[in-house]
Amino acid sequence: MPRIVSVGAAQLGPIALKESRAEVVERLVALMRQAKGHGCDLVVFPELALTTFFPRWYFEHQEEIDAFFERQMPGHDTRKLFDTARELGIGFYLGYAELVEQEGRLRRFNTSILVDKAGSIVGKYRKIHLPGHHEHEPWRAFQHLEKRYFERGDLGFPVYRAFGGLMGMAICNDRRWPETYRVMGLQGVEMVLLGYNTPVHNPPAPEHDALSNFHNSLVMQSGAYQNGTWVVGVAKAGREEGVDQIGNSIIVAPSGEIVAACSTLGDELAIARCDLDLTRSYKSTTFNFARHREPDQYRMIVERKGAEPPPEA
Amino acid sequence: MPRIVSVGAAQLGPIALKESRAEVVERLVALMRQAKGHGCDLVVFPELALTTFFPRWYFEHQEEIDAFFERQMPGHDTRKLFDTARELGIGFYLGYAELVEQEGRLRRFNTSILVDKAGSIVGKYRKIHLPGHHEHEPWRAFQHLEKRYFERGDLGFPVYRAFGGLMGMAICNDRRWPETYRVMGLQGVEMVLLGYNTPVHNPPAPEHDALSNFHNSLVMQSGAYQNGTWVVGVAKAGREEGVDQIGNSIIVAPSGEIVAACSTLGDELAIARCDLDLTRSYKSTTFNFARHREPDQYRMIVERKGAEPPPEA
Repeated sequence: MPRIVSVGAAQLGPIALKESRAEVVERLVALMRQAKGHGCDLVVFPELALTTFFPRWYFEHQEEIDAFFERQMPGHDTRKLFDTARELGIGFYLGYAELVEQEGRLRRFNTSILVDKAGSIVGKYRKIHLPGHHEHEPWRAFQHLEKRYFERGDLGFPVYRAFGGLMGMAICNDRRWPETYRVMGLQGVEMVLLGYNTPVHNPPAPEHDALSNFHNSLVMQSGAYQNGTWVVGVAKAGREEGVDQIGNSIIVAPSGEIVAACSTLGDELAIARCDLDLTRSYKSTTFNFARHREPDQYRMIVERKGAEPPPEA
Repeated sequence: MPRIVSVGAAQLGPIALKESRAEVVERLVALMRQAKGHGCDLVVFPELALTTFFPRWYFEHQEEIDAFFERQMPGHDTRKLFDTARELGIGFYLGYAELVEQEGRLRRFNTSILVDKAGSIVGKYRKIHLPGHHEHEPWRAFQHLEKRYFERGDLGFPVYRAFGGLMGMAICNDRRWPETYRVMGLQGVEMVLLGYNTPVHNPPAPEHDALSNFHNSLVMQSGAYQNGTWVVGVAKAGREEGVDQIGNSIIVAPSGEIVAACSTLGDELAIARCDLDLTRSYKSTTFNFARHREPDQYRMIVERKGAEPPPEA
């Protein structure tokens, strides 16, 4: 019996600063209903899908920042997503800013959850590779203050049994790091869900701007192939509060091939019928890790953080 | 002052079983002279560039196997390569089967060397990711007995100061593993040289055959981008002793873009003028490892060899 998970990559267009959670949730629900109409089992939303991408601004006051965070999930405005999941029998991945009291203090994470068809949270991930910078850098056309507003995730890269397979999650910048996919690949992951907000313009390296979509596809395609896993990457796209963000939401097969893609920069659904058993021909041959990996040769990956050139002769 | 290394990717067409070392060396020398005519500093030859790809056969007698190995480098037939390097002032990367007496016994490696413009060996690498199988498997259309005929390399993934930069080496199947590039990236590598012999047909997974070139490019492009390094990948191509091998020799920039490529399956030179300083805009921004890597989160990469799914609930 094939293990088909029909997935909708539910790209979002821009979310305005003034847009309310309730308004955004209506857009998400509309995409869930579209996806159900196309027989989807699972809808994947972007990173920080409930608000505008707020790390682009420097805020002086913590209460301004915290206004973008969810204290409960489901909460007052997001409950409708869970109700819709249950009503339609469709799961979802959702990225949001999470504020929790933990270890006796307030902690803030860039988080995603996986919700099953019964509307229950079955998995959580907190972003590990926070990009950008920690201090206000007024020279930039816009800020990228994720290192300031979030703590690094504390849940590792967990893989969950859900939707009949082994599901992993990642968020935005995580996708550029092969270690992200590999740690999940070593847990047998069959589908990696990931949302992102990626400005076209990278202030410290504008020479990369023309390659934004290429790099986006490249890292997800190689991560898929090198671990024999599906990858579903979903953007918040378009010109949001004056900043252009890439779209290029794609569903990638374990072969590394793109099998579905969005072509606009707005709310858009791309759909693929994903057979989790297609992972096997990679995981059992070229990427049979038990046969072919050489972990004692990889120690530098964990023993060293930054690059250290060999000494001069 | 830009640090330009002009590189020739010196693809080889098939080498027949009966072709002598001296005949092959003449082909290599011809490519070195071509490359010199185009102002190259360095020529990159394939894996096991001196003979036919012998692991495709099962041999009963060790002396049949050893006939494909070099006991000395330079040796009688290969000295001409070193003399030509010195004469022309051009360096080279060469893959060959290496037989050495070491630790009181004969050892066999799938090896590459880096030779400078003075004709001196300045770097050596012994292949770590040996693909294929250890036992004779007569059901296959052809064998891939690298795990039988070679020991795993014992030199790690060293990075050498040469040609005005930081040069690394890898061989064939190494290129499919992101760990290969990362271990060199953590040593600041600026150019990875690698040769390969890749059959179009993979007997255990014929469903991948149509994607051979795509996978070849994908892994080198992502390895380049994710480490901000040049990658020069060079094939022994074409129908060799009845087995079709891919060509698709490419030079990849630190952006992940292919900047030069062979388009035949024969002896062919592709050329690029590689500025090693183009590595900086990646190594200092998106892939500034010291700022953005999270090595304590990667421990599974070294602690686990094979994949282990999470326990059933």
